Amino acid sequence: MPRMAPHPRDRPRGEAASPVTPHRLTVRVYYEDTDFSGVVYHASYLRFLERGRTEFLRALGIAHRGTFGNVGADGFHFVVRAMTIEFLKPALMDDELCVETHPSATRGASINMMQKIRRLGEVLLTAKVRIAIVAGGKVRRIPAGILAKLKASTGAGPHV
Amino acid sequence: MPRMAPHPRDRPRGEAASPVTPHRLTVRVYYEDTDFSGVVYHASYLRFLERGRTEFLRALGIAHRGTFGNVGADGFHFVVRAMTIEFLKPALMDDELCVETHPSATRGASINMMQKIRRLGEVLLTAKVRIAIVAGGKVRRIPAGILAKLKASTGAGPHV
Amino acid sequence: MPRMAPHPRDRPRGEAASPVTPHRLTVRVYYEDTDFSGVVYHASYLRFLERGRTEFLRALGIAHRGTFGNVGADGFHFVVRAMTIEFLKPALMDDELCVETHPSATRGASINMMQKIRRLGEVLLTAKVRIAIVAGGKVRRIPAGILAKLKASTGAGPHV
Amino acid sequence: MPRMAPHPRDRPRGEAASPVTPHRLTVRVYYEDTDFSGVVYHASYLRFLERGRTEFLRALGIAHRGTFGNVGADGFHFVVRAMTIEFLKPALMDDELCVETHPSATRGASINMMQKIRRLGEVLLTAKVRIAIVAGGKVRRIPAGILAKLKASTGAGPHV
Repeated sequence: MPRMAPHPRDRPRGEAASPVTPHRLTVRVYYEDTDFSGVVYHASYLRFLERGRTEFLRALGIAHRGTFGNVGADGFHFVVRAMTIEFLKPALMDDELCVETHPSATRGASINMMQKIRRLGEVLLTAKVRIAIVAGGKVRRIPAGILAKLKASTGAGPHV
Repeated sequence: MPRMAPHPRDRPRGEAASPVTPHRLTVRVYYEDTDFSGVVYHASYLRFLERGRTEFLRALGIAHRGTFGNVGADGFHFVVRAMTIEFLKPALMDDELCVETHPSATRGASINMMQKIRRLGEVLLTAKVRIAIVAGGKVRRIPAGILAKLKASTGAGPHV
Repeated sequence: MPRMAPHPRDRPRGEAASPVTPHRLTVRVYYEDTDFSGVVYHASYLRFLERGRTEFLRALGIAHRGTFGNVGADGFHFVVRAMTIEFLKPALMDDELCVETHPSATRGASINMMQKIRRLGEVLLTAKVRIAIVAGGKVRRIPAGILAKLKASTGAGPHV
Repeated sequence: MPRMAPHPRDRPRGEAASPVTPHRLTVRVYYEDTDFSGVVYHASYLRFLERGRTEFLRALGIAHRGTFGNVGADGFHFVVRAMTIEFLKPALMDDELCVETHPSATRGASINMMQKIRRLGEVLLTAKVRIAIVAGGKVRRIPAGILAKLKASTGAGPHV
């Protein structure tokens, strides 16, 4: 279902090319995502962003169930610690949206991700998301294997 | 938050009085519950019904976390096995709805619940819901303590 | 995003072949779809089913915005009037599910749709859904153009 | 359903008293709000915050349907333009949470609201939300009647 390859119309208009190509996921807007004002409900975008992060991690070989399974005392979970979101333009029923995700910084216990939602190239929403890894109810250092994958994906060191 | 006592306007109109008073929970319709057609999204009613069942069980002293906690190998969960729903009239943004719940039959491994959603007495939705208890991935007989509470709430034997 | 072509692993196991091939949509399970019991929340399946119906209708050339836009006095909406659902097995985080949809009967003012949700061919859920068309707050006869498309999709007359 | 009066256990611990008492709404955590990691899904908090803002506005006499109805060319809507959220501690199934809302600044075309979610007084989440009023697809100045009500609620002028 996720479309991993960049799509021509997902390309930014009039923006300086980023040195790192973000991960892209296409999502469709359904009834469930809208509200009675006629457009997409604001919290629905957080679901779209989370799908984008999940597919970004899956593309790196980091699955949620399994590595971070809900079973056992040492199961890890990614948790959102902070978000800053700008809602620029509304999405509508039936829209096909592109969720862009790329890590901007990885530190010992947290990952920053920059995300955008576009429609036909136009940016509808920008978000900066701080993620942490939690195990046994406590924040943990990012395991070395995951850190290496994230660094490789940013094409840079841990403190980009 | 839940309003347990029956409210005058929650009373049925032109219906034969039931021998058993159902549990009643008031829920408010918010933006999140509606869709772009202007009314409540059909799956939102299932969330309302589930809140009603949760509060009905809580009123019987059966809490979800705790007795049925997600911890330990012997944690129980209620799961929905089947539903038959009639959507009669739409609810709207800002509506205050009454969710009625009462068990109609309890057998060894399943509980039937009859539920209604009303607005000012008028029935908007009826549902028949079959619930089972699952532990360790398998359907289990209803524990005796819970069975006794449910029987008491129906004012009748187990095969009503 | 929707994958319209049947996928080998979406094919039923040990079921008599239906004379009509259902529409198939692949959906992925994300965090948003699960609950603390560890599996997919029961109302999430209704969202999956609704996505399946939306894509089924879109494949017939019946878009929700546009033909059934939220604008104007004569805008139509599909509404769910009744559902009967059997929840057979739970879906899990990260699962890739196949939603099958085909109309079983179209009458003057309502459409019955049979739907299934499968994982690797195994049926997790079956649903029978009765849909009506509403305009201006009232149930309407199905417009002739839509009725023709639905009949063609069932390969049969209106009272299948 | 909303409990407007401050509740003893909703009172902050070790915080300087604010000159303005925030609006308080109690919300219960249900199955629908949690995810398979065992705690409340991060986007669910945005639904709680939106309920809090809706009840805050209702308490001021500003209803969503009606004044801001979805009917007519001059219907107004509140839209979220930006949010900054800190997720401090997770909420759990069955928790009773208190959503605090108070406007921190009202300008010509936007309202800032400070919101907190507490459990037994402990702050689980803080949010700063910028709201605008939209009509006919364009951002509008806040109508004088609404501005007056908001100012009165902050006990201060428009540029607090």
